[in-house]
Amino acid sequence: MNILDKLQTRLGPLGEHAHYAHGYYAYPRLEGEISNKMTFNGKEKLVWSINNYLGLANHPEVREADNEGTRRYGLAYPMGARMMSGNTKLHEKFESEIADYVGKEDAFLLNYGYQGMVSIIDCLVDRNDIIVYDAESHACILDGARLHMGQRFVFKHNDIEDCEKQLQRAQKITKKTKGAILLITEGVFGMRGDQGKLKEIVALKENYSFSLLVDDAHGIGCMGKTGAGTGEEQGIQDGIDFYFGTFAKAFAGIGAFIASTKEAIMFFKYNMRSQIFAKSLPMPMVFGALKRLELMQTQPELREKLWQITDALQNGLINAGFDIGDTNSPVTPVYLNGTIDEATALVRDLRENHHIFCSMVVYPVVPKGMIILRLIPTADHTLEDVDRTITVFSEIQLKLIDGHYKEEVETTV
Amino acid sequence: MNILDKLQTRLGPLGEHAHYAHGYYAYPRLEGEISNKMTFNGKEKLVWSINNYLGLANHPEVREADNEGTRRYGLAYPMGARMMSGNTKLHEKFESEIADYVGKEDAFLLNYGYQGMVSIIDCLVDRNDIIVYDAESHACILDGARLHMGQRFVFKHNDIEDCEKQLQRAQKITKKTKGAILLITEGVFGMRGDQGKLKEIVALKENYSFSLLVDDAHGIGCMGKTGAGTGEEQGIQDGIDFYFGTFAKAFAGIGAFIASTKEAIMFFKYNMRSQIFAKSLPMPMVFGALKRLELMQTQPELREKLWQITDALQNGLINAGFDIGDTNSPVTPVYLNGTIDEATALVRDLRENHHIFCSMVVYPVVPKGMIILRLIPTADHTLEDVDRTITVFSEIQLKLIDGHYKEEVETTV
Repeated sequence: MNILDKLQTRLGPLGEHAHYAHGYYAYPRLEGEISNKMTFNGKEKLVWSINNYLGLANHPEVREADNEGTRRYGLAYPMGARMMSGNTKLHEKFESEIADYVGKEDAFLLNYGYQGMVSIIDCLVDRNDIIVYDAESHACILDGARLHMGQRFVFKHNDIEDCEKQLQRAQKITKKTKGAILLITEGVFGMRGDQGKLKEIVALKENYSFSLLVDDAHGIGCMGKTGAGTGEEQGIQDGIDFYFGTFAKAFAGIGAFIASTKEAIMFFKYNMRSQIFAKSLPMPMVFGALKRLELMQTQPELREKLWQITDALQNGLINAGFDIGDTNSPVTPVYLNGTIDEATALVRDLRENHHIFCSMVVYPVVPKGMIILRLIPTADHTLEDVDRTITVFSEIQLKLIDGHYKEEVETTV
Repeated sequence: MNILDKLQTRLGPLGEHAHYAHGYYAYPRLEGEISNKMTFNGKEKLVWSINNYLGLANHPEVREADNEGTRRYGLAYPMGARMMSGNTKLHEKFESEIADYVGKEDAFLLNYGYQGMVSIIDCLVDRNDIIVYDAESHACILDGARLHMGQRFVFKHNDIEDCEKQLQRAQKITKKTKGAILLITEGVFGMRGDQGKLKEIVALKENYSFSLLVDDAHGIGCMGKTGAGTGEEQGIQDGIDFYFGTFAKAFAGIGAFIASTKEAIMFFKYNMRSQIFAKSLPMPMVFGALKRLELMQTQPELREKLWQITDALQNGLINAGFDIGDTNSPVTPVYLNGTIDEATALVRDLRENHHIFCSMVVYPVVPKGMIILRLIPTADHTLEDVDRTITVFSEIQLKLIDGHYKEEVETTV
């Protein structure tokens, strides 16, 4: 058996759909400036697919900072890993400012969020330690946990009773191994939009000894009074031992950071493999991240606009009879029932006839027969966008119930 | 036991040195434009520490392209993962051009090299497969192999006899499991500078069934007649099934690519977790990478200059009696004998009194008592830089042998 031969016959659960999905449902090309309206296949669409929560991607001051940072430093600078030759004053300045923003002693700026999280988990635990984590954690958390040589216990998504049960199991073992427990969850779950039950988890510290790592990719900039994230929102930021945020969403960039105590940050700087052995975050990204952080703090109207649109969209959908689950963040899933064929016909109808572009989630990510249309409201959207979307969604839901998309399948695929 | 408490007392093998190393030996700040001369602690130094092999980081056409790409798109664009909303024509254009350059059917542009390699390995193998890999493989290869649920066999660095022995062991097992063998090595090893014995490994395909994955981070752009890498250099590019290159070195950027057959690339696009679940490489990086690729092809004088400097440096060091091991690439290690204390005093002397900045490698990366000063020649360096460096190195070697740095230790640390 040869690996190349194997790949030809086994494209994987997502790859199975590539023959009809590629370039349209998967790997589509959204063109033009990032905003509520972008171009897809040559026509303007109303876009609900991108995590540009605060509208910073194309904010004039951000674009100016991106230009200025690139003009000053070029995209290559600095060369090398932070530890060897890739450290700069600006990296350190950002670390200091983001630590202040999220209320921690210090922070470490990471070259990329995904590998950052993988290495954070990897370096924090050894074989005597136990990882306890939420079942719907992001892929990067799962990959980090997969590297762990010790035991890992998963708890049912946001189920505090089960979480406590897993802590009990873990504590029994760590008493013998003299190991520690690392509990990992998210601030906002990117698919369902429900916040992690951080407050309840922090309360468990009274009875269990564990450290808490929170991935707040979707929360930083959006949640909490000052945008400092889901820990602030729930009033328990101090209970989070390791606070992780990425730049891929509200920050509209790449890179990430981990914030914690001074000692923990020094530990991370000398033990995170993906940071010690890979290149530093490019300077223009750091320069741009500082501007984005400034705007998060000085322009609260961006966050207010995000929430105005979010509330209008979510209330509108609920009033129109839609099931949006238990989201309590901007992430807005619309749950529908139908087959994958129906989902693809429905999404095509949305895009081609109603010029609305949103992402669809189907089996195997959610159970068979369920379709999620995931809408991401941003500060770039208008109330008119919201109204039009609710009207169109009401139409397509009726068509879905009527079996309209069943008939369409043959002609569209 | 609490993880935070644990970190305070256990900083790790590198972190142990942080109290005196931080900000000087580790996490130093190199300032100013990227070139042979940069600023460290306010003074100009001759720099041999950065992998800007072809001098592209600060090439006027590259800087212009970086500016233009950022001006057109901003650093945020595109938002989202390639599969969902982060695909563009430019990403696809680069994939087509780099595939042509390295002589493969197709390529997949990756958002970062480290996590790219981890996920490549992760998605290629299942528990029935066996990974056979070189003992001195880069950290990202080791992390990828660590995710593997099946067996992994390591062969002694560049030892073909041992490599064959591990293939025999692996083949015995895969005959039973019906699994496949993935052999992983590097084009150029970044520490010693010796090329992987790709030609000999490809020849083993006559007797063993395996697929070959080569990490050519240090080879792409530098090795081979056209700069297409170490496979071209050794005349066996066709024998490499999966050819991986990063942008962190000669490309002077971030990101990476994997090149292979059309079918394999489609498989990667639908199965690499760090690409499916993380943001696309920013557009200005892609725009800039296209310019860098063009210059690699149209300005062979950059590569000629790199090799002129490399040859002068390596021959000069050898003639001056230095041990540079068995490098056959631009990477130039200088092997000295001494303690860590002596190494730090020596590097301080180099930096403060001779204004030469280079990286030092000591225990635990190499055996106790060994010091490696690693020099990276680039097209930005001059023959005068080389001469001065060899003169200074001859001086410091005499001082090291005379025990000069032993006495210094007390006063400098």
